[in-house]
Amino acid sequence: MSASPSIPATRVLAVASHVVSGYVGNKIAVFVLQSLGCDVAALNTVQFSNHTGYRQWTGTMASAQEITDLYNGLRQSYLDDFDMMLSGYIPGAEAVAAVGAIAKELKEKTRDAPGKFFWVLDPVMGDNGKIYVAEDVVPAYKSLVPLADLILPNQFEAELLSEVKIADMESLNRAIQALHDKYRIPHVVITSVKFSVPGHPADHLSVVGSSMTSSGKARLFKIVFPSIDCYFCGTGDMFGALITMRMREAVEKVPGLSRRPNWLSDDNTPALELPLAKALEKVLASMHQVLSRTRDGMAAVVERTSAAMTEEDKGDEKKAHFVKTKAAELQLVRNLDCLRTPVVEFMAKAI
Amino acid sequence: MSASPSIPATRVLAVASHVVSGYVGNKIAVFVLQSLGCDVAALNTVQFSNHTGYRQWTGTMASAQEITDLYNGLRQSYLDDFDMMLSGYIPGAEAVAAVGAIAKELKEKTRDAPGKFFWVLDPVMGDNGKIYVAEDVVPAYKSLVPLADLILPNQFEAELLSEVKIADMESLNRAIQALHDKYRIPHVVITSVKFSVPGHPADHLSVVGSSMTSSGKARLFKIVFPSIDCYFCGTGDMFGALITMRMREAVEKVPGLSRRPNWLSDDNTPALELPLAKALEKVLASMHQVLSRTRDGMAAVVERTSAAMTEEDKGDEKKAHFVKTKAAELQLVRNLDCLRTPVVEFMAKAI
Repeated sequence: MSASPSIPATRVLAVASHVVSGYVGNKIAVFVLQSLGCDVAALNTVQFSNHTGYRQWTGTMASAQEITDLYNGLRQSYLDDFDMMLSGYIPGAEAVAAVGAIAKELKEKTRDAPGKFFWVLDPVMGDNGKIYVAEDVVPAYKSLVPLADLILPNQFEAELLSEVKIADMESLNRAIQALHDKYRIPHVVITSVKFSVPGHPADHLSVVGSSMTSSGKARLFKIVFPSIDCYFCGTGDMFGALITMRMREAVEKVPGLSRRPNWLSDDNTPALELPLAKALEKVLASMHQVLSRTRDGMAAVVERTSAAMTEEDKGDEKKAHFVKTKAAELQLVRNLDCLRTPVVEFMAKAI
Repeated sequence: MSASPSIPATRVLAVASHVVSGYVGNKIAVFVLQSLGCDVAALNTVQFSNHTGYRQWTGTMASAQEITDLYNGLRQSYLDDFDMMLSGYIPGAEAVAAVGAIAKELKEKTRDAPGKFFWVLDPVMGDNGKIYVAEDVVPAYKSLVPLADLILPNQFEAELLSEVKIADMESLNRAIQALHDKYRIPHVVITSVKFSVPGHPADHLSVVGSSMTSSGKARLFKIVFPSIDCYFCGTGDMFGALITMRMREAVEKVPGLSRRPNWLSDDNTPALELPLAKALEKVLASMHQVLSRTRDGMAAVVERTSAAMTEEDKGDEKKAHFVKTKAAELQLVRNLDCLRTPVVEFMAKAI
């Protein structure tokens, strides 16, 4: 139990939002990374009382300058020796550019040591056909994707980046190939696929991934898993933290791969043998277990919270929304085993 | 492994500083609390690149108003249902008062339910005879101590609060009695005792604790443990997080105690049977194991960091200080077992 022995000691810079209460952004990513034995530098882009899914919150955002200053503070004391970087929500185009400049510098520093630094970028821009960031954030992300090693867009963000409308598996495959082509991005995972896939049960979801070949050709795979009928926040951030450490673990298992540029497997590695596919199997096992336990624990949270409410408050729709949102906060801290020793149930399949 | 089954589900508000890199303040307390299965709301009073022991840092402090706003954000969405609160470094007297107002409100809310809310206050003011906060922070803390349930001053802070000069075990005991008398503070732990105690090996340290009786009489005990010859930062913050959860655990083991005011044991409980004494034994076991492993791992950190330095930089005393300070950052994330399943070696003794 002293550490997850299969994951080598790793120092990660995690850049995302912080919430006082609840589990989104760095609040969830840092704990997940640490639980898997990772030394995390947590650069918080905002400090909010709670996530925005409650529809009300208080707190402050870090400016682009503050983000840059914090990074400079690390560098001046030799604290910038990162093996990996994970970036999530960043408030505004200027701040996105500031984070990009940090990643660029870390890449540049290790130019002569391929594979020494790996950037996992979650290009947080929107979901379900709607952009929920300022319009100028989209081009800001587009200019950063070529610097990243692995991107984690949802279906809508993949459309924005690839400029391919995704409606079925065929167009999804085209979008991923377009991402490899346009940005030379080595690894892609589309974290939510909204269309129904022929042959899958209606209550199942899929995640699709690809690590390109040396000539930039997509090597596609998918994992299908049962959905849980509840709206959770922070799942993308948990996903990002898990894939960061599980990718590192899977790459370490292939001799020499961690010293190859972008951790790209050689061309004769089939899609289902890719470290990204192996990593994703473990990630989705953890996710499914944590979400199941969260759902099972929701009634107890509602009961505890309602005990402090007046009858009138309980009948107020807006207030009921707060309670429901609180109950859907991911329950991680008493479910460490789901993170550390997931039982893989859903396997990667060829497309 | 799914949780520490002996510690009941607990929701803690942790108020302290945040550092991007390294392990002090909330950066260490939050992980320790979470590792022991605790749902933590982390209100960060500062965001600095690194702790001030490096002698250089960047970042920003939260104002008293920002702290209050964040708490109000929690309250308006029913996120203020805390079982416990742990407060560490708070920047300035106004911010100390803001945190005190939060604790006061949480106490007031549970006035009719004794034991329902428990505040662990680390009155961070100075060390080794020197105040390192603004002068007006001292009276600000003095006015808050009567609201707390457990305080964790070091020897110097105990002197400031008790107005008793501590030079030996006898004056230490007087200081603790003065704290119970002056502030009606139920539980006290003096976290570092600087004088040498007759009969103890010179390389040993002691921690002294007391839970008062119903008439306010100190019930004193001490734990003696070997010191590790190295200057670590963040030990006080790790201590605070550990004692918070271990106190909760020890109290839960005594039927009915968690519903008594301030979790105060009845008068016939001898000092060595106090939950505070039992909790402290586990805390010091965890501390000693983490510090030992940190010391054992320091050379590797120095080697890793030096690899990126020029020969000239390596010879620079100021730069060597950064590297040494970085190497002394507490190594927690790969030593989860020390936190979760400590092996008790140092037992509480009567004074």
